[in-house]
Amino acid sequence: MSSSVKDKSIGIGVIGTGFMGKAHSIAYSASASVFGTGLRPRLEIVCDLSPERASQRATDLGFSRYSDTWRDVVEDDQVHLVSICTPNDTHAEIAIAALAAGKHVWCEKPMSTTLADSTAMANAAASSAGKTIVGYNYTKNPAVTHARRLIDDGVIGRVSGFFCRYDVDNEADGNRPWSWRMSRAQSGTGSNGDVLSHVISVAHFLTNSSISRVVGDYTIVHKERADSQATGQTKVVDNDDMVAALIHFENGVKGHIGASRVTWGRKCGLRWELHGTEGTIIYDQERLNELKLFTRQDNPATDGFRTILTGPLHEPYAAFLPNGGHSLGYMDVKICELHDLLSAIEAKSQVWPSFSDGLKIERVMDAVDRSAQTNKWVDV
Amino acid sequence: MSSSVKDKSIGIGVIGTGFMGKAHSIAYSASASVFGTGLRPRLEIVCDLSPERASQRATDLGFSRYSDTWRDVVEDDQVHLVSICTPNDTHAEIAIAALAAGKHVWCEKPMSTTLADSTAMANAAASSAGKTIVGYNYTKNPAVTHARRLIDDGVIGRVSGFFCRYDVDNEADGNRPWSWRMSRAQSGTGSNGDVLSHVISVAHFLTNSSISRVVGDYTIVHKERADSQATGQTKVVDNDDMVAALIHFENGVKGHIGASRVTWGRKCGLRWELHGTEGTIIYDQERLNELKLFTRQDNPATDGFRTILTGPLHEPYAAFLPNGGHSLGYMDVKICELHDLLSAIEAKSQVWPSFSDGLKIERVMDAVDRSAQTNKWVDV
Amino acid sequence: MSSSVKDKSIGIGVIGTGFMGKAHSIAYSASASVFGTGLRPRLEIVCDLSPERASQRATDLGFSRYSDTWRDVVEDDQVHLVSICTPNDTHAEIAIAALAAGKHVWCEKPMSTTLADSTAMANAAASSAGKTIVGYNYTKNPAVTHARRLIDDGVIGRVSGFFCRYDVDNEADGNRPWSWRMSRAQSGTGSNGDVLSHVISVAHFLTNSSISRVVGDYTIVHKERADSQATGQTKVVDNDDMVAALIHFENGVKGHIGASRVTWGRKCGLRWELHGTEGTIIYDQERLNELKLFTRQDNPATDGFRTILTGPLHEPYAAFLPNGGHSLGYMDVKICELHDLLSAIEAKSQVWPSFSDGLKIERVMDAVDRSAQTNKWVDV
Amino acid sequence: MSSSVKDKSIGIGVIGTGFMGKAHSIAYSASASVFGTGLRPRLEIVCDLSPERASQRATDLGFSRYSDTWRDVVEDDQVHLVSICTPNDTHAEIAIAALAAGKHVWCEKPMSTTLADSTAMANAAASSAGKTIVGYNYTKNPAVTHARRLIDDGVIGRVSGFFCRYDVDNEADGNRPWSWRMSRAQSGTGSNGDVLSHVISVAHFLTNSSISRVVGDYTIVHKERADSQATGQTKVVDNDDMVAALIHFENGVKGHIGASRVTWGRKCGLRWELHGTEGTIIYDQERLNELKLFTRQDNPATDGFRTILTGPLHEPYAAFLPNGGHSLGYMDVKICELHDLLSAIEAKSQVWPSFSDGLKIERVMDAVDRSAQTNKWVDV
Repeated sequence: MSSSVKDKSIGIGVIGTGFMGKAHSIAYSASASVFGTGLRPRLEIVCDLSPERASQRATDLGFSRYSDTWRDVVEDDQVHLVSICTPNDTHAEIAIAALAAGKHVWCEKPMSTTLADSTAMANAAASSAGKTIVGYNYTKNPAVTHARRLIDDGVIGRVSGFFCRYDVDNEADGNRPWSWRMSRAQSGTGSNGDVLSHVISVAHFLTNSSISRVVGDYTIVHKERADSQATGQTKVVDNDDMVAALIHFENGVKGHIGASRVTWGRKCGLRWELHGTEGTIIYDQERLNELKLFTRQDNPATDGFRTILTGPLHEPYAAFLPNGGHSLGYMDVKICELHDLLSAIEAKSQVWPSFSDGLKIERVMDAVDRSAQTNKWVDV
Repeated sequence: MSSSVKDKSIGIGVIGTGFMGKAHSIAYSASASVFGTGLRPRLEIVCDLSPERASQRATDLGFSRYSDTWRDVVEDDQVHLVSICTPNDTHAEIAIAALAAGKHVWCEKPMSTTLADSTAMANAAASSAGKTIVGYNYTKNPAVTHARRLIDDGVIGRVSGFFCRYDVDNEADGNRPWSWRMSRAQSGTGSNGDVLSHVISVAHFLTNSSISRVVGDYTIVHKERADSQATGQTKVVDNDDMVAALIHFENGVKGHIGASRVTWGRKCGLRWELHGTEGTIIYDQERLNELKLFTRQDNPATDGFRTILTGPLHEPYAAFLPNGGHSLGYMDVKICELHDLLSAIEAKSQVWPSFSDGLKIERVMDAVDRSAQTNKWVDV
Repeated sequence: MSSSVKDKSIGIGVIGTGFMGKAHSIAYSASASVFGTGLRPRLEIVCDLSPERASQRATDLGFSRYSDTWRDVVEDDQVHLVSICTPNDTHAEIAIAALAAGKHVWCEKPMSTTLADSTAMANAAASSAGKTIVGYNYTKNPAVTHARRLIDDGVIGRVSGFFCRYDVDNEADGNRPWSWRMSRAQSGTGSNGDVLSHVISVAHFLTNSSISRVVGDYTIVHKERADSQATGQTKVVDNDDMVAALIHFENGVKGHIGASRVTWGRKCGLRWELHGTEGTIIYDQERLNELKLFTRQDNPATDGFRTILTGPLHEPYAAFLPNGGHSLGYMDVKICELHDLLSAIEAKSQVWPSFSDGLKIERVMDAVDRSAQTNKWVDV
Repeated sequence: MSSSVKDKSIGIGVIGTGFMGKAHSIAYSASASVFGTGLRPRLEIVCDLSPERASQRATDLGFSRYSDTWRDVVEDDQVHLVSICTPNDTHAEIAIAALAAGKHVWCEKPMSTTLADSTAMANAAASSAGKTIVGYNYTKNPAVTHARRLIDDGVIGRVSGFFCRYDVDNEADGNRPWSWRMSRAQSGTGSNGDVLSHVISVAHFLTNSSISRVVGDYTIVHKERADSQATGQTKVVDNDDMVAALIHFENGVKGHIGASRVTWGRKCGLRWELHGTEGTIIYDQERLNELKLFTRQDNPATDGFRTILTGPLHEPYAAFLPNGGHSLGYMDVKICELHDLLSAIEAKSQVWPSFSDGLKIERVMDAVDRSAQTNKWVDV
């Protein structure tokens, strides 16, 4: 490897080795091969609370070193970019320390478990030269970024409505035992924080605006669940299985959003529609290589929604595959997300969603929660 | 024709000869051929304000007589069942007169233009032996009635959420001139009364419950439109192009609904989802012969939404076609609607949605309207 | 009814009162109401071998008279148009007699059970003033006729390939007992005559050409079936459960076709694709209100198959419904078929597929059969 | 990295750095991270005819060394597995040399450009301890391997028909200039070798049988194309733009297959159907995370095709993602293919499709070609 290439490399530390830690690591491994240009990740160090697991994962994932202490990563001189893939309530401390140490930070969503923590994270980012990004990956798919470009280019005119649900089946089975996720005290909100957060990220990204006012509503579908300790007792579920809200955006657009963690049959059921004065765009995350677009044709007798298959004309698909319709997957989109961050680091430019953008998303979740408690429209 | 058959015939009068008058007439013509049993409609008299048009339509549609005065129909001794297919603001007067004259009434939706009129209609029906039905035909499709049976049979467990939008493109083109439909003074609400009313009918039918509490919101997308008089002036649109609401049902189910008259690409875009504790049902009116159902299979590796094609096992499809998948159309569903009414007349049984049921639908529209004006949750 | 209208009426006789007899009768009842112009059917006489059934069906279907002898219909002075909805092996005798009596004939498909009979029918038609049509209704759907217009207008350039299968599940269950349909001696070919015939009709209609050369192949999937007499014995199935062929058209287009009567899950699974030098059209009979069209757009980044929903711009949809996406059904398409015939009778013009056109379809079935027996390419 | 881990590593050489060379390299980089067990690829050396490009690609793709001579790779002591991603007419020489040198070989499809070369490759593999695999990746998708398991488990009963087309738009535009791919002398067959080969691989994989008899047919849609040298002249296209065949399998199953390189709108349009005596499976490569399955349910009123979304229950999806419906992409499937090969190398077990299996595929292509030349059914 020539020295000129070495100059373009960037040292990586990953904290947390669950699924997201693995996903980040795979993205770091593949990024340079896929894009062939830009900063080249060097997998320096990986961290897991268990030293045995840390060692094993270093081997599996291709890191040079490992540690069971996250501060080792944050303080490592060879590390310039830190991935935070730990439980949500640890994000803030790690992220703030990493930023203080001058690192760039790729933090999984949601930012944290309290608005105070998220605010502190955004403040830390504001006073640091480090780039930050929150892992709202459903905005990074080339089909979705293409939709954003279509909107920016006026292809559907002025946006007139945004409608989105994200339904998953994680807790659909009422026989699944109670878990800490179902406790407001231990987990905060339920579907609001876990699932609706993605919806809000998509809403902000596509409209290039922010939700400013909401009225929200919760449903607890399975009000009691069996104690997982097999005590024969049940425990109360006191956070939301489903959430819904009417929304207003700063730019005047209105719409409604919803989410559920208890919907049978939906595996990754994020579906959104953008209505505009000249057209309509529809998307379904379970078919992430397709975008449906309606705009008027010269001959109305052949009008209809077009199913656009993602291809080389939809950046950065061409970095992955030379032919359209061959399909990107979840992991590829995660690589796109990383590429956005690396490009911003290299160019010293903005990347979305930074901690500041992530905080706006958290504030909407908080407003939905306040509204659901008070049964009133509330400002974000 | 034998006398025994004659005994089972029923005299028909149709008031209004626009599309719905034609649709009712075709339904009357075909009903006996399709079902082969039950009351046999005799097309007695048709009414249009224009005597020339009335005469022509009598010929076209197969009526024995015609009139340019609706009272001639209502008071006709040979008429037992009156179809009201006139402008919405005339429904109440005609319906009340018909009921007073002892007729059965098939009234197109919405019932009227004011809650007072609808209430008067429901009262008139309550004190009459005549059967009434309001033309909410999207509840009459065999796919939809099958969904209701599945729900009643517990196939998806306890219903946990109802989500529905109905989007059409009637006024999507911002260059279409202003019309009376866009005036709150002349037409009342916009998408709420015209489009959302169907959504509410479906909501009530499928859940076998009623919406009891709402928070609603309006959007006027095209705030001004050209004067249709080609004056070069514009006129203000002051009723809703889009409407959305969070809803609670009497039985505790929650959900959200929405409608639009300005959505490009949606022609008959009524789509609903019912989430339950054991499964999910999805429907799209633009594919009215399909129902999507998810319930757990014995082998989760082959779980997935099933696309059920309507067929002879879904009553009363078999009256139309011997084989599944051959597709019913809008007009067939209208014939199903008539069949429900004729069966109720013959059996002296209930039919849904009667004027009383229709009034419940109107009250929800009214509540959405009040909520959208006051920005508060309101009781229906 | 004014005399001028009476002059435009046409006397109808229907022979056979099974499903197709009912379908023809409903079409006759509704036609004038739907179209409002043109010849007005008068339902004169219906025939069934059972006088009781004939009488009952006359009542149900609205005929003035009935008979248990088909010659009564064919020779009836008040009858100008005869529908033949009897078993296939009776078509020829009835049709030839009707044509000899100067009647127009609407004959259900297939024309007959032998090429000799079909030829005799075509000859009879050629020497008669009567119009003839064979009931290949999958060519009469407005979506399909629109496809033909698109092709004629060059929207997809020069046609380069035609690919079509028609799969149904009629005999999919191997436990269904043996029937005469499964006997080459009693029924002729199996899926070839019953199912593939529709495919060939579509092939000829869409390409405006005829299949001229084929190589065919048969599969008998269930080689033995239980005797329906519950003897505990099995009987041999000796005609085709599945058929497939490579085809050449007179105009040089090539393609392949196939059919099956034993395919689980396909209810009316007629799907075809037309590939052209400038575009592609796809259709699925189970979604008969949709046509998928691909042609290049100015911006290839938004290219994709368009799903065209049938609407008023696709003749004669507007005769049924004022708004697109509201869906026609099987029976509506049968009414379109009748309308084509009535228009041709009135205008003394051509109608497709006449007995002559039907014979061309039969000859392709025969060629496929000869090829499957000899394992060679054969000329039609 | 511990020595025990080192023992499980395997040295990799990649020859050819076009898209497939890149794809293989990414798969080698990600494989260990994804699967976490098994042989760990060490990217030793990459080869490109251009030393500059070889050097650059070594950097981009993470190889330690590079060469502009393929023999350097084949003879490299540190290399145990060689990827052949060069033009098709070079596969045989390289593969035979690699096998002679005791290497394992991952060769891109098709095997070669002549049956003689492919036979020589299969012979070389037979006399070597090296494992071989041909890159027919459409058989490696977890949805597809799940289909195979369903078939093996008898879920759809006995297979009764296989129907498949693969249409792409590579040469759909008639204005694209002539290329060597359109010359039978320079490229051999057209769509047969390039596109249909994938179809045959899927046919063999899913049925666990081989095509034994065919009748094939070619279409040249664009018979002349502009000379790419901008001479103003046209050149003759003399190989197949489209190919179709009726097929018999050794196990008695019949079906038809087809392919096209000139079909507008199809980007990766590989669609297949398997009909069985108890059910039907349908697949579309453009929606590679979905499998459609029909089998009888207890209640026929809720029968329908199920859309199965790939998830953790469909091996080896779980190695990539913990939740269903999150979507694998093309590159993930290529990683699955590599995993099959590495597992076979480690376990000294069989892998499909080896050179021997690939040769069977080539023989079918050859038989289709012979049949298309002679217009006869031919044995493979």
